[in-house]
Amino acid sequence: MTARVVYAGARALRLEAAATEPPGPGQVRISVAYTGICGTDLHIYHGDMDSRVTAPCVIGHEMSGRIAEVGAGVDGWQAGDQVTVMPLDWCGQCPACHAGHTHLCHRLTFLGIDATGSMQSSWTVPARTLIRLPDDLALDWAALVEPTAVAVHDVRRADLQPGEKALVVGGGPIGLLIASVAARQGADLRVVEPDPYRRTLAGELGFTTVDPAAPDLPGVLAEWTTGAGAAVAFEVSGAAAGVTTAVEALAVRGRLVQVAIHSVPREVSLHRFFWRELTLLGARLYHREDFETAVSLIAELHIPAAALISRVEPLGRAAQAFGALEAGAAVMKVLIDCQFDEVSSER
Amino acid sequence: MTARVVYAGARALRLEAAATEPPGPGQVRISVAYTGICGTDLHIYHGDMDSRVTAPCVIGHEMSGRIAEVGAGVDGWQAGDQVTVMPLDWCGQCPACHAGHTHLCHRLTFLGIDATGSMQSSWTVPARTLIRLPDDLALDWAALVEPTAVAVHDVRRADLQPGEKALVVGGGPIGLLIASVAARQGADLRVVEPDPYRRTLAGELGFTTVDPAAPDLPGVLAEWTTGAGAAVAFEVSGAAAGVTTAVEALAVRGRLVQVAIHSVPREVSLHRFFWRELTLLGARLYHREDFETAVSLIAELHIPAAALISRVEPLGRAAQAFGALEAGAAVMKVLIDCQFDEVSSER
Repeated sequence: MTARVVYAGARALRLEAAATEPPGPGQVRISVAYTGICGTDLHIYHGDMDSRVTAPCVIGHEMSGRIAEVGAGVDGWQAGDQVTVMPLDWCGQCPACHAGHTHLCHRLTFLGIDATGSMQSSWTVPARTLIRLPDDLALDWAALVEPTAVAVHDVRRADLQPGEKALVVGGGPIGLLIASVAARQGADLRVVEPDPYRRTLAGELGFTTVDPAAPDLPGVLAEWTTGAGAAVAFEVSGAAAGVTTAVEALAVRGRLVQVAIHSVPREVSLHRFFWRELTLLGARLYHREDFETAVSLIAELHIPAAALISRVEPLGRAAQAFGALEAGAAVMKVLIDCQFDEVSSER
Repeated sequence: MTARVVYAGARALRLEAAATEPPGPGQVRISVAYTGICGTDLHIYHGDMDSRVTAPCVIGHEMSGRIAEVGAGVDGWQAGDQVTVMPLDWCGQCPACHAGHTHLCHRLTFLGIDATGSMQSSWTVPARTLIRLPDDLALDWAALVEPTAVAVHDVRRADLQPGEKALVVGGGPIGLLIASVAARQGADLRVVEPDPYRRTLAGELGFTTVDPAAPDLPGVLAEWTTGAGAAVAFEVSGAAAGVTTAVEALAVRGRLVQVAIHSVPREVSLHRFFWRELTLLGARLYHREDFETAVSLIAELHIPAAALISRVEPLGRAAQAFGALEAGAAVMKVLIDCQFDEVSSER
């Protein structure tokens, strides 16, 4: 039997049991250990993505686990292997795929949004989506591989160089993962975050933070960069004000990596882009190499995984976990423990 | 004696005579042949840049001429040399200059805006701003070197590759110069322009044009790119709708070069930048190498200089020339003939 959290429509999650089915050819069945809740999952929970998500369904895509069963024709994997999944399935036929940008496939299927996700104790996926984890990597930490791969991709998109000054606008999980990856690459960082809890946590992780409500934010940033401006800004806030902060903070020829999802058009000073010859780089998802780098960074302790995981809830308390995130509680990353005991236990 | 057009405040231009002064050390005095009127000059004429321009003053920066006198300490130049001027004077001390982006100097002096310009029969400039012209290059054509250098810089900023599909949004002088430079580099081009006169001229120059009011603009562009989208878009319109057209036309990983000046923030679909991993590149002015390339392109007949020059007016009719541009008359580039006869003659 499998236990799973079913999204049944806006703010409706229910725990269900289902029969376990064997993997088909080319597939593997994973015993899921942990599934993290991401901002997109929260949007789905709110019902904001019902035009894309077909309820009832299982969501979730930030996960870790062990292979339970291997389907026919799958080589190189065996039961017990620790894995995570790069949750992308592309068509291979569209202009984006032909250009090698498979993660931007015009008909991309994202597992956990467009197809069944990992918020269940048993998940069957195509073997080609598997990413190997070291045998000794803690599986709760490994649930951070997917968002860390996002951060690795974002930093790669910025072409960040050692010693460059980089501003991270937004100190949530992705912002702090970007800061961690950028720090590892030798950047000189500031994290802009309005929430005191998040600022405190970022400070405990060793990052210098800036409150955007500070009376002289431009002055603070100008002093840091001795008047030049920052070489790179990561816009991770998703807020209109975050975009403005990032644009105004950049030096001549500075690069702004657009990480956050803005569901409405934003007013952007194109004059500033012209005047300073700035570059805006959209960044979405990742490639396989970003996942592999993310695994190494977590395994080698360059990502503060333990500090970023605020809370772990069992499958049966998924609704409460979503509720805590929705309430803007003092939490960073929340994981769902998908390991299935016959009797689900609170922890 | 020198004849000069003096900007005395919004919509006030007057013709004046002044004594000719010898060039100082490191300077040359140029007998100006032609000065083109650019969009920025029109903004100044409207009074929109009075916070930056100190009236009374002489404006103009798209020019050609011959050296009349050489100041002390100037080597390599002599009277009679055909020249144009790269109208930039930078500080050499600011972060932009230190980073090698002298054209983006924090304290840039732009000759013709921040300092005396070329709409006069005699213009004295630092010798370091001179760009040599071939002896046999027609000086009316050579007045297009500066805007052509803008176009060369814009195309270079796009990193345009042969065979790439590139959309030019805006078919005014800069748009058609960009199209000409891009065509020379082997791009597959479409020029989007609402004005029928400009569309007709672009067509006569061999460009395929698109009317943005066409009932199915996205469909037209999709058919051209077989559904992929364009690799590059140049936003030269300065209009909000032009930005939207450019953003929506781009393929996955497409590059949008922001050429036009937008005096107000524009609503931009950052979601599209994220979704397709687009790049926005601000582009401003030029480097010396852009000027040198522009001279070669004009001399080697790759720029339709004759077709782009709609009208040449003498210094005494500068006000009428500005008026025609202001009225949106069927003109492309208008030149002021700055060659000074004792008796200024209409032509």
